[in-house]
Amino acid sequence: MGRTSDARDKILIAANRLIEQHGYSALGVAQICAAAGVPKGSFYYFFESKQALALTVIDEHWAEQQGQWTELLDNDRPPLQRLRDLFEATETVQRDGQRDTGTVVGCLFGNLALELSNESEEIRVRLQEIFEAQIDMIERVVVEARKTGDAAVTVDAREAARSIVAQLEGRVLFAKLLNDPAQLETLWRNSLALLGVAADAPAMTG
Amino acid sequence: MGRTSDARDKILIAANRLIEQHGYSALGVAQICAAAGVPKGSFYYFFESKQALALTVIDEHWAEQQGQWTELLDNDRPPLQRLRDLFEATETVQRDGQRDTGTVVGCLFGNLALELSNESEEIRVRLQEIFEAQIDMIERVVVEARKTGDAAVTVDAREAARSIVAQLEGRVLFAKLLNDPAQLETLWRNSLALLGVAADAPAMTG
Repeated sequence: MGRTSDARDKILIAANRLIEQHGYSALGVAQICAAAGVPKGSFYYFFESKQALALTVIDEHWAEQQGQWTELLDNDRPPLQRLRDLFEATETVQRDGQRDTGTVVGCLFGNLALELSNESEEIRVRLQEIFEAQIDMIERVVVEARKTGDAAVTVDAREAARSIVAQLEGRVLFAKLLNDPAQLETLWRNSLALLGVAADAPAMTG
Repeated sequence: MGRTSDARDKILIAANRLIEQHGYSALGVAQICAAAGVPKGSFYYFFESKQALALTVIDEHWAEQQGQWTELLDNDRPPLQRLRDLFEATETVQRDGQRDTGTVVGCLFGNLALELSNESEEIRVRLQEIFEAQIDMIERVVVEARKTGDAAVTVDAREAARSIVAQLEGRVLFAKLLNDPAQLETLWRNSLALLGVAADAPAMTG
């Protein structure tokens, strides 16, 4: 089993990287197998199609990201600090990706949402679930922030959380287009504005 | 010339629609010609490659959108009202697209930015110029709003404009993923927040 599992992992790692860099449609199974260093026969042993592979890549990518988000957002630190930690971690991920590959890879889910929403209903539904889960996680932090007085009492927590994720995706788009992770630096400040926290309040410092 | 120009226009119209719906990489020249109802020979008479076509589609799409944006943003109406007009027009474009094709098509430039930033330097640079031009146009409105007291005096007009476009792209992503143009409805409220206008100020009504 050891060697076979290795081949599956190698395919998934290569596919994740290639899809992030070049998108889904531009990729062929042969290219994925060549990058993974496994024979093409292995591919169809593990995945019945390129779409089945994409769904697995999405699931494994989300499993990892969900773990990171849980660690950053579901703890005892002050709620707004947790949001700030998330944005800083996101910027670090993009900086690391740029250092390793030469270009900002962006958000796998955002890339595929725009590329495949009209191509695959199964992928669309999976990505919808992931974005809703992200919004859920941020909403819980916003609800806490509202209780502690760190967000305006009038804030609609769900809508604010959705807007924060939208802002994140829009800024990651700019980071990718401009190959510049610093595009993410304003997320913190903008999220405070979306949460009704005055721009010149002490919380804005830093 | 009449008939030849028609063929070029037909190719451009079909390519714009197909790229919006299915992305760039998934498309073949034969598919574009079939949709346009022109022989494949015509394609290479007008365009030396699929990338040359994509650049022309981008330029013509932007020429049209720039005209709309100029009309909406460069006039004597109160500055924040102009922003609101832009968001409403954007939502209308997405609603019309959904009515005509069954799905929200999203933003051609955002779609291609995520799909092709690492594939074509020429397309990346062109899209950078377009997004900077959009940010320029919104920045001028924010500067006016700051002068008239409709935006906080402390607002960094350039950064606020960039954040408004980022929010627009993020919300269009959700609209496409969820096939729901109503995702754009919060743009106005969120832009006020990004401009330092209090959420419960009279300007928020409606």
